[in-house]
Amino acid sequence: MGNTVRQLAVLGSTGSIGRQTLEVVRALPHRFHIVALAAGANTDLLAKQISEFKPRFVYHQDREAPPPLANADYELRSLEEIASHPQVDTVVIATSGKAGLSPTLAAVKAGKRICLANKESLVMAGEIITSEARLNAAQILPVDSEHSAIWQCLAGETQPPAGLILTASGGPFRGYSSAQLGKVTAQQALKHPSWQMGKKVTIDSATLMNKGLEVIEAHWLFDIPWENIKVLIHPQSIVHSMVEFTDGSTKAQLGYPDMRLPIQYALSYPERLPNPHLPRLDWERSNNLTFEPPDRDTFPCLRLAVEAGMKGGTYPAVLCAADEVAVELFLSGCIKFTDIAKLVEQVLEGHQAIAHPTLEEIMTADAWARDKARQLVIGDNRCGLP
Amino acid sequence: MGNTVRQLAVLGSTGSIGRQTLEVVRALPHRFHIVALAAGANTDLLAKQISEFKPRFVYHQDREAPPPLANADYELRSLEEIASHPQVDTVVIATSGKAGLSPTLAAVKAGKRICLANKESLVMAGEIITSEARLNAAQILPVDSEHSAIWQCLAGETQPPAGLILTASGGPFRGYSSAQLGKVTAQQALKHPSWQMGKKVTIDSATLMNKGLEVIEAHWLFDIPWENIKVLIHPQSIVHSMVEFTDGSTKAQLGYPDMRLPIQYALSYPERLPNPHLPRLDWERSNNLTFEPPDRDTFPCLRLAVEAGMKGGTYPAVLCAADEVAVELFLSGCIKFTDIAKLVEQVLEGHQAIAHPTLEEIMTADAWARDKARQLVIGDNRCGLP
Repeated sequence: MGNTVRQLAVLGSTGSIGRQTLEVVRALPHRFHIVALAAGANTDLLAKQISEFKPRFVYHQDREAPPPLANADYELRSLEEIASHPQVDTVVIATSGKAGLSPTLAAVKAGKRICLANKESLVMAGEIITSEARLNAAQILPVDSEHSAIWQCLAGETQPPAGLILTASGGPFRGYSSAQLGKVTAQQALKHPSWQMGKKVTIDSATLMNKGLEVIEAHWLFDIPWENIKVLIHPQSIVHSMVEFTDGSTKAQLGYPDMRLPIQYALSYPERLPNPHLPRLDWERSNNLTFEPPDRDTFPCLRLAVEAGMKGGTYPAVLCAADEVAVELFLSGCIKFTDIAKLVEQVLEGHQAIAHPTLEEIMTADAWARDKARQLVIGDNRCGLP
Repeated sequence: MGNTVRQLAVLGSTGSIGRQTLEVVRALPHRFHIVALAAGANTDLLAKQISEFKPRFVYHQDREAPPPLANADYELRSLEEIASHPQVDTVVIATSGKAGLSPTLAAVKAGKRICLANKESLVMAGEIITSEARLNAAQILPVDSEHSAIWQCLAGETQPPAGLILTASGGPFRGYSSAQLGKVTAQQALKHPSWQMGKKVTIDSATLMNKGLEVIEAHWLFDIPWENIKVLIHPQSIVHSMVEFTDGSTKAQLGYPDMRLPIQYALSYPERLPNPHLPRLDWERSNNLTFEPPDRDTFPCLRLAVEAGMKGGTYPAVLCAADEVAVELFLSGCIKFTDIAKLVEQVLEGHQAIAHPTLEEIMTADAWARDKARQLVIGDNRCGLP
């Protein structure tokens, strides 16, 4: 990287990862320059970001509404145009849900360096994205703390590892019985013990669905067989994940739960840049690290996700879509916490899968799964859905 | 490395590290070939090893005694001849004490790949050895589990780290008061809680002198400033050491305490070779890792060693020599456990150091320190020494 300045597009700049990406850029302005910002509904924050970072290109979701900070000197572009623009060398995909898929594919086809925080892209279309990345020499660099940890541990290794160990905090309901889980509220589920994150991923952490999606992501990112990816509960969230090697050695990456570190590593790779804002481990405080196996019976989402990943085809897209609807229904009080897994499982069971689907077939499966999930809840009279 | 067969000389083949090196070679005969074996007094075991590995060159300490397995087809050579022989590409230096220094230097000057298990070489003559290694493009690969861990964590990193964290089990007397330490026996001190090692290093582990020597070793091996090398007590001996990077990230290398892993990694680097004999971590069993700061007041050897390292010159050689005599005197019942640090400190205080010494000046300082240590004990009437 030398002293080159990376030219960044940040997609999803007003979300949790997007805001933290801009914090890293703010701390290291001599190494990163914002070429483009893209955001959803939070027009006020987008306007402030435009004012501060003066991007050349902007995307905002609501094309009917007046553009944010209309007097600023920028051009409105689509997400795909931004992700593939020649002036952009690094695309941070921090949008949530399936909205990240199309710009990720555009960036991959344009051979960009992609800092990927959007899980759904690889979960829904891992086969398409990774094969297009190989064809177009695009680099997909993980931003998730677990995958960043694995990637850091793989640095300098000349051979495939023997296995990956994804750590999980276990969420706020670690140790709960199924009966206890049936009574938890959205408010309780939104209190993650160690990470500050968006609502969807916080609920997914509480159900362990998030860890299941990460297993799928790890499979595609690192080309590791399913049976060699393990999940280990580590409540302190200090060890972010580990890699086992063929000689019996294990490497781990550690740090306090702070997304700015994996974001910055993906931005600066292969360099590491000193950043005084990033916390350092204090071993007087973090002096006890514990590990335990996940409770797969009480938290069935982990199993559902890994099974969907192994079956492949359109199953993972259906899993994602059904989970997104189920989490919304739980947050709005329509279904119980334990219904999330049940609903996802019912949708998966009703799915007629397509092997090696096209992007269109993936999107069709996604739409089908959303409808199906809503119908099942309406049919159940569990909620007054439209 | 491809499928080349490394041509090894094992110096100190009958000691703990030497025997484990041969276990690795035995498990991976298609990758390693024994060209030379060298041993001290254990002629019976050396004869068995000659019979099994059929080395072309042999060294045995007692030149007056008949050569081991006299009917075998080998040539007797000196340690230095073996360490620099053109047929040898990799020299494992597993001799203990200052006997490793001269062959290490011979191997360095011959530009060999050196798997270094002998701490004293780098502690006594770190400046000479590392500068000769640079001049002659010799590779010094650590075999100590801590330094191997650091080296594994540094793989693929493009910049110097922010710091090193050497872990220590704390030995059998962790948590003891000075008063309790004054009463411990050699038998108690020889019971290490997690590692099976030779007597000298086991006692050094109990006093924390071993960790101090490792700080000096790490300084020279990785060219890290003294103030950036920390020591952390980790009783389970699973995390073998850690590296902190400039962005706040930390990497650790983990495994059960088994020297065959760092030995094999040094032999096979940059490859890792599957070896079914090497244990894999079982997270159901190793589910709690704890860390605490070392008790520098109760275990003064750690401070003495780091201070000697920082002062440099002939001080580290004097430290090593005085410690070797002190440990012998403790094992033979002449002095108390707590006298080890006192004796080493007294010898260091009486030393007139030379900055940037030659090898001869280092050897002279070594001899002076041994005499001085023995005199102090005789003068004290603590023991009926010759």
